[in-house]
Amino acid sequence: MIQKILIANRGEIALRIIRACREMGIKSVAVYSQADKDSMHVALADEAYCVGTAKSADSYLKIDQIIAAAEVGNVDAVHPGYGFLAENAHFNEVCRSSGFEFIGPSPQAMEKLGDKNTARSMAIANDVPVVPGSDGLIDANTDATQIARDIGFPVLIKATAGGGGKGMRVAETEADLETALNQARTEAGAAFGNSGVYLERYVTSPRHVEVQVIADNHGNVCHLFERDCSVQRRHQKLIEEAPSPNLPESRRKAICDAAVRMIRGAEYGNAATVEFIVDKNDDFFFIEVNARIQVEHPVTEAITGIDLIKEQIRVASGEKLSFAQDDVSCTGHAIECRINAENPDKNFMPNPGKITRLFTPGGLGVRFDSHVYGGYSVPPHYDSMIAKLIVHRPTREEAIATMRRALLEMQVEGIETTASFHDKVLQHPEFIAGTHDTKFVEREFTG
Amino acid sequence: MIQKILIANRGEIALRIIRACREMGIKSVAVYSQADKDSMHVALADEAYCVGTAKSADSYLKIDQIIAAAEVGNVDAVHPGYGFLAENAHFNEVCRSSGFEFIGPSPQAMEKLGDKNTARSMAIANDVPVVPGSDGLIDANTDATQIARDIGFPVLIKATAGGGGKGMRVAETEADLETALNQARTEAGAAFGNSGVYLERYVTSPRHVEVQVIADNHGNVCHLFERDCSVQRRHQKLIEEAPSPNLPESRRKAICDAAVRMIRGAEYGNAATVEFIVDKNDDFFFIEVNARIQVEHPVTEAITGIDLIKEQIRVASGEKLSFAQDDVSCTGHAIECRINAENPDKNFMPNPGKITRLFTPGGLGVRFDSHVYGGYSVPPHYDSMIAKLIVHRPTREEAIATMRRALLEMQVEGIETTASFHDKVLQHPEFIAGTHDTKFVEREFTG
Repeated sequence: MIQKILIANRGEIALRIIRACREMGIKSVAVYSQADKDSMHVALADEAYCVGTAKSADSYLKIDQIIAAAEVGNVDAVHPGYGFLAENAHFNEVCRSSGFEFIGPSPQAMEKLGDKNTARSMAIANDVPVVPGSDGLIDANTDATQIARDIGFPVLIKATAGGGGKGMRVAETEADLETALNQARTEAGAAFGNSGVYLERYVTSPRHVEVQVIADNHGNVCHLFERDCSVQRRHQKLIEEAPSPNLPESRRKAICDAAVRMIRGAEYGNAATVEFIVDKNDDFFFIEVNARIQVEHPVTEAITGIDLIKEQIRVASGEKLSFAQDDVSCTGHAIECRINAENPDKNFMPNPGKITRLFTPGGLGVRFDSHVYGGYSVPPHYDSMIAKLIVHRPTREEAIATMRRALLEMQVEGIETTASFHDKVLQHPEFIAGTHDTKFVEREFTG
Repeated sequence: MIQKILIANRGEIALRIIRACREMGIKSVAVYSQADKDSMHVALADEAYCVGTAKSADSYLKIDQIIAAAEVGNVDAVHPGYGFLAENAHFNEVCRSSGFEFIGPSPQAMEKLGDKNTARSMAIANDVPVVPGSDGLIDANTDATQIARDIGFPVLIKATAGGGGKGMRVAETEADLETALNQARTEAGAAFGNSGVYLERYVTSPRHVEVQVIADNHGNVCHLFERDCSVQRRHQKLIEEAPSPNLPESRRKAICDAAVRMIRGAEYGNAATVEFIVDKNDDFFFIEVNARIQVEHPVTEAITGIDLIKEQIRVASGEKLSFAQDDVSCTGHAIECRINAENPDKNFMPNPGKITRLFTPGGLGVRFDSHVYGGYSVPPHYDSMIAKLIVHRPTREEAIATMRRALLEMQVEGIETTASFHDKVLQHPEFIAGTHDTKFVEREFTG
């Protein structure tokens, strides 16, 4: 069993891992940059080592410094958290070859899933739906109409040399296809000197739905249900929830089973998230696997009661999963808002600085995960998330009410945060109805 | 339906009620003493009125001032919280006669249950066990042996004029009875000029177990399981948990059913707690009914998922309970530690003053209910509780581990708190085994 863990990360996720370690009787070792010396993850770890200057490239991404800290701290294992080196197969390999267990999948599984084409092929091999496409270029010899029928309308015509929307057309129906193909070829030829195009299903109103999976190294793979993360701005998730609103029970079962097949097929051990887009008809298509713990894991912890970080540590220690699929049930509804030090009224401009006064929200059904406190200065060098506010109530309607109440009572003075933006989203009829898609924030809020 | 509520209380419970109001779309009106102007309950209410100077008698107990605030605030109802006027039947009556709904039982039910003798008679009438006793004095004409046999040994001989332990004797067996009676009579006669004594069952190793009940005004009465509050110091509860450890399932059902009978028999509407002592054999005996919400209600909220304050408000609005008994289930284990501004190393001396820095515990399964923040000065005028730290995990063992972790990460600088004392209790083998009784703290910690 693992006795001492180095946490190769910072901020709230480092603190999250320290909490799990402490509850398991495991010693924790923090690393930190000079800019992070006053973070609570440094204060609360059993030991802490400075690994460099403020810039991530000179500290949190510095593999040799982190391995040196692991050696000085005499740890058994390394937890990478999310971001930084979490999906770096080389770091994973270096940890293991230096004698430290890496709390995550094997470097081989990480590498294969990290490559989009390999991952897509693995999905197909494991009967996991991918966005249907033409499997090659559409030229004079191919029956574009038949292929488009097989894919299903609307179809997207994409330039093989393309980018930036050039050479891209949507054909809503069979009648539009010929014209759209010709326009796309002409535009692609002019733009890229290559008129090759291919077809793909055009997913309208896509929702982002992801499945939390965890696997041990004894062949046991379980899902912990899904999360909806459709409230995004520029592909950054802002609000996540579990379970996904408006997903029929039969589709929920199908998407969760597909995710389990994917992870089993990848011979993957530890926590993983299998990401999908879901269309208007509730058909789902594989996007990618995140081979690490995710920011939004607390909503899954809320509805299942399972501590994901502890389970990651147990699995990395060689233990079997502490539960079987039938033991996992979903209770109530959970929502997470990422509280960022950004000014939502100034195009989400980062707003680091000193928090002069902080009142943290509390009460029934509220979890507040943060490394900050009154008097703490948010450094400008890292991503701007300062806290995760998570609520868990019996119904989605109650969870929204509790989140709005908690956002209102949270008082962060000295810096701007995204709390007011979240409150607007939570009042929006589309969000309340759960019919929003990944284009919702751009369409309704930020233009 | 109630639209606006005045909260006739302060601190964390005032904030707790504001939270429920906000989530229900109800406006809240705070009252405060001059000493409490910087409390978060004042900042977070929709309106706030100062009702007097620091001393409770001149503010929070000042019925005319509170009624005046309710009139100025134009509220529909008054929530009394716990303490102060919460069980004052006169205040209850004045609220109602002034046109404000009182969020609690009728003054009649409150008054009857507030009288110990009436409450004991009501318990007997409703088949709720009370501590068996001799129903009168033991004199030369009574067969003390037969009565003691009926009560069950050991029996306690108590002076009818007694107090302070004088004229009190325990008879462990029948053989001890005659001697003990004579000693008690002699001692009582010398001390009080009255040698009358009576018999009562001597409850050894008593545990404090209480049942949360809620009733509407349509005849529906439900229990929300029990809480164990045996960790007490001088009759002040320090740690509460739900469910009660080591209570056999059949006894749990029996004690909960008895509590429901008691509340139904009292024609009581709203939240109530029926308190019992439980002996070594898991026999339980009625002590009293608390006709209000209690400090420790969050552990019940954790295991049932039911928001008790909201339910109180709904019931006071004339609605039916939002659930039936069969809908109420118990999930996991919850523990609450009362964090007091007291120095546990100096005989729990109150330690008010300025909190210079605060880090509130967070993470999975942690609820932190408090009106304080970094920079806030704890006034010396009121009870010393500054926060309630509540954890909820799948098992009692995990709940203890999470509580210890949360206590360790909570950082309150500037004043002493009872956090370190709680950590000692949580490590004690008796507490871990769940075999502690109400004499545990005196016996093991404070001498």
